[in-house]
Amino acid sequence: MPVTAYAPASVANLCCGFDVLGLAVDAPGDEVTVSFNEEGIVRVVEIKGDDGRLPYELHKNTAGVAVESLWKAVKAEKGIDIAIHKKMPFGSGLGSSAASAVAGVVAANELLGCRLKKHELISYAIDGETVASGSRHGDNIVPSLLGGIVLVRGEEGIELPVPNDLHVTVIHPHVEILTKVARDILPQKVPMKDAIYQSANLGTFVVALYQQDLKLLGESMVDKLAEPYRSTIMPAYGQVQAAANQAGAFAFGISGAGPSMFAFADKAEKATAIGSSMKKALELEEIGSTVYTSKVNKEGAKIIS
Amino acid sequence: MPVTAYAPASVANLCCGFDVLGLAVDAPGDEVTVSFNEEGIVRVVEIKGDDGRLPYELHKNTAGVAVESLWKAVKAEKGIDIAIHKKMPFGSGLGSSAASAVAGVVAANELLGCRLKKHELISYAIDGETVASGSRHGDNIVPSLLGGIVLVRGEEGIELPVPNDLHVTVIHPHVEILTKVARDILPQKVPMKDAIYQSANLGTFVVALYQQDLKLLGESMVDKLAEPYRSTIMPAYGQVQAAANQAGAFAFGISGAGPSMFAFADKAEKATAIGSSMKKALELEEIGSTVYTSKVNKEGAKIIS
Repeated sequence: MPVTAYAPASVANLCCGFDVLGLAVDAPGDEVTVSFNEEGIVRVVEIKGDDGRLPYELHKNTAGVAVESLWKAVKAEKGIDIAIHKKMPFGSGLGSSAASAVAGVVAANELLGCRLKKHELISYAIDGETVASGSRHGDNIVPSLLGGIVLVRGEEGIELPVPNDLHVTVIHPHVEILTKVARDILPQKVPMKDAIYQSANLGTFVVALYQQDLKLLGESMVDKLAEPYRSTIMPAYGQVQAAANQAGAFAFGISGAGPSMFAFADKAEKATAIGSSMKKALELEEIGSTVYTSKVNKEGAKIIS
Repeated sequence: MPVTAYAPASVANLCCGFDVLGLAVDAPGDEVTVSFNEEGIVRVVEIKGDDGRLPYELHKNTAGVAVESLWKAVKAEKGIDIAIHKKMPFGSGLGSSAASAVAGVVAANELLGCRLKKHELISYAIDGETVASGSRHGDNIVPSLLGGIVLVRGEEGIELPVPNDLHVTVIHPHVEILTKVARDILPQKVPMKDAIYQSANLGTFVVALYQQDLKLLGESMVDKLAEPYRSTIMPAYGQVQAAANQAGAFAFGISGAGPSMFAFADKAEKATAIGSSMKKALELEEIGSTVYTSKVNKEGAKIIS
């Protein structure tokens, strides 16, 4: 019987958590279906929703590499066919490649009857995402897999408390920013005082989550390491930020390497209003966009059939 | 009636919390006694235990400036005489100047009947410490005043949970390292990856305190911003660190700007053994030292008579 898993999009960085924080949202996300084959190999047999942009070649496909990595580790006899259903944009800063890799390993874990716990799947999923990102990094993988708000240290994730009344609005402007460009714009060295300020903010962010203090959370969400540089290449960054703030956002930032941006609100209605407001700001610049609104997804990746 | 306050020493930085974390210990500490005079001025009338090194001149004396700052703010009519009893070494990295300033404002607050809460005294105490340190910074002031383990953002302190079984050993080698030297050895810029690593560690440190997880706490206490540079001018740093670790320390670092060093242990006996072990390591280098062992001081500064 084929097994299908869903893995949600994730917002990495979260301002003060550049390269170390991420959270999962409800949607968008990717679906991956796996089934046994008699060829004794892992292969990608179908890709939908990608406009022909994703490779079928196993070692270039994030889900393919992730599934094969798990498959090799457990020394399975039967091969696996992988069908990928992309339901989210790539190059969006929403962890698209991570979602495919995560959905792949979660589905394969079920199909193979491995019964590995979710956190035991992290390194296989990272094997997959490394194909797309070029470095082993879990700030999208871990939240997509485990759900919630996660502090990522290397390949380990520490799950942080999620405030009940936290609502996330994500906007994906329909423009492309290459991750390489977003990376190359960052300096190799940063002022000592910025490093100190960033660490104090991240510490405060963690306190705010444990205290369920959204005011303090908002105060902590200032990014000194990436935003000053990356905001210059984001579409209409200042306008979108102002629109979010005017509509009641208590935090705003770049999602991952962009171009998506996110905002936090303390009520569902505000999150919706923030989405509309940000969308209008982009329309004024003649940039189309897609808005997603949800609470933090605490469940992470899951088997859906 | 004269009023006397005690303010404890503090260990600032705590590895991953360079410039933003500090904790209070039980001893050493400073005592300051204040009483009214009829001259309508604030003045330092006595200093004991300083080997003649502290200035009587009001505006050069940390306790004097702190007390006068509070005194001016509340527009008191009567003047204040200040007697300082130094019971701790200065230039030790244990927040000596902060302790004097804190004891001064706590005593004066009581004498003047201001009934300001402790956190309302922070800025006056910082006024005082600025005389000694040259910059407004609360990472010794706030823990000495409030007690506990504190995350300092600007002039505000966030009190963090203190694990029950946390024991602190502090060793003060009898050598002098000028704060200016310890400061000048730090680079203006640091590698981006070190800044990211530091922030992840500080976030993890906060998690570990909320979870009362001493193992995780130890893992988080790695300093990428100051220790790599400052350890080179600390007395026998590598040897003292090895001695602490061999005796069971789960964390070790420089206290403030040094030369004092500190270690964490999960048992009182271990904390004592760590102190002896570190002391021996310094003796081998012909450096005398004083060891202090206590739990984290949760009370902070207090009126003692």
